[in-house]
Amino acid sequence: MPTRFDQDTRTHRTAEHTWAGHVRPAWGNANPNGGYLLSIVVDALRQASPHPDPLSITAHYLRPGLADRPCEVDVRVLRSGRQTSTARATLTQDGAARLEVIAALGALGEPGVAELAPPAPRIPPPEACLPRAGATPGEVLPILEVLDIRLPADQVQPGAAGKAELDCWIRFRDGRPPDARACLLFVDTFPNAILGLLGSVGWVPTVELTAHLRRRPVAGWVQGRVSTIDLADGRLLEDCMLWDAGGHLVAQSRQLALLRPPAPRSGT
Amino acid sequence: MPTRFDQDTRTHRTAEHTWAGHVRPAWGNANPNGGYLLSIVVDALRQASPHPDPLSITAHYLRPGLADRPCEVDVRVLRSGRQTSTARATLTQDGAARLEVIAALGALGEPGVAELAPPAPRIPPPEACLPRAGATPGEVLPILEVLDIRLPADQVQPGAAGKAELDCWIRFRDGRPPDARACLLFVDTFPNAILGLLGSVGWVPTVELTAHLRRRPVAGWVQGRVSTIDLADGRLLEDCMLWDAGGHLVAQSRQLALLRPPAPRSGT
Repeated sequence: MPTRFDQDTRTHRTAEHTWAGHVRPAWGNANPNGGYLLSIVVDALRQASPHPDPLSITAHYLRPGLADRPCEVDVRVLRSGRQTSTARATLTQDGAARLEVIAALGALGEPGVAELAPPAPRIPPPEACLPRAGATPGEVLPILEVLDIRLPADQVQPGAAGKAELDCWIRFRDGRPPDARACLLFVDTFPNAILGLLGSVGWVPTVELTAHLRRRPVAGWVQGRVSTIDLADGRLLEDCMLWDAGGHLVAQSRQLALLRPPAPRSGT
Repeated sequence: MPTRFDQDTRTHRTAEHTWAGHVRPAWGNANPNGGYLLSIVVDALRQASPHPDPLSITAHYLRPGLADRPCEVDVRVLRSGRQTSTARATLTQDGAARLEVIAALGALGEPGVAELAPPAPRIPPPEACLPRAGATPGEVLPILEVLDIRLPADQVQPGAAGKAELDCWIRFRDGRPPDARACLLFVDTFPNAILGLLGSVGWVPTVELTAHLRRRPVAGWVQGRVSTIDLADGRLLEDCMLWDAGGHLVAQSRQLALLRPPAPRSGT
């Protein structure tokens, strides 16, 4: 039986350059999570490419996705080499209107084994950590029904970290092992690092996210660290690093996001 | 009189979505520099967009550019908002063959003033630094005729830094002040950080480069730091940060590049 993630990100080819999918409601809060939408894009990309995993993928978020509605992914392979392929993809929704939600560019290939990589920070083990909280007290995050996200006890409350840097553990609740595509989801599902410094912040929409997959993760918990050292004019850059259960760096990402005044709708 | 950089990156519109330019020979070594090619792309992008500067731009390098040959940039504006626009661009060469050299995605806008930003590292002033050397003794880098690039004396020889981190100063030789577009060139013209650790390395071709412009630089020298903490399977991620003469962070970039065995042709 397919896992929830595979089922909810599945696409099938309907024309030479077109894959059809469905944006499910579970993967987001007010809006579908950007990493979730990107996982749908990459499902189509890897079918179109001779290479299995995204080594580098950039997504520009043009408008919020529509939950519980079909989507289409248009894929054009721009270059197909021996070691890597490059492809462009566009995720649209709303049928005839073809609203562009994501414009993406990716290089696909086969990740390798690191010669140089930063070690995972030492943090308390998952069983000693607490579940990710909402951005406001009592807020329920629907995505936590499918993902188990935990933070060290001294970082879990917004503002408690005292700096724009947060550590996390993450895994699928249904036991699906992590892979390259799951990493794209994970990097966009942690609390925003800036929450650790500022406490409550509003919805922090992603303008652009670039992720690099460095190694295939082994089964088990994935450890993440998000940090922001750069905030200008209401726009921040957030970096994320992921390590697998073997302690190996598996992904790095950076996103440009908008910091808005706190509002009733919040969360990543 | 236009400066060399402006002259050599100029494009003019020839059709609704098409801008024509010319890849000049000065800006590269064996191949045209990737940041130089991207500066041509952005010249067309900013003409097509209501916004002046690239806030986030990603370029995938599909094949080496052809020096001393015309080029065309195809631009499609995907979204035009109040604060930012998003556009896709493709740089092709070789006329009828339309060889795709760069596929790019960018968000354009107006950069702001930082609330949070890392300070510039303290390094010796430009007058106490030495000119960038070639990757092999006696190698002449043509790009140094248009750019003045200097490194601290203890980092200038490949391998001397003892780590994959190098500091640099950079400016145009003809006095052109830096701007957002120049930053895209600068981030790709420093010695590769990995050179500081490994000493001589071959040509390190860029697969993908993403740059974020954070603030408009003031006139004067630009200070840069390149570093690599992540090398796997012959592919490395190199980060670059730029600060202007006022000490403000103006740009951050990250590129995925290939580390190949040393070869006669070398340099970025």
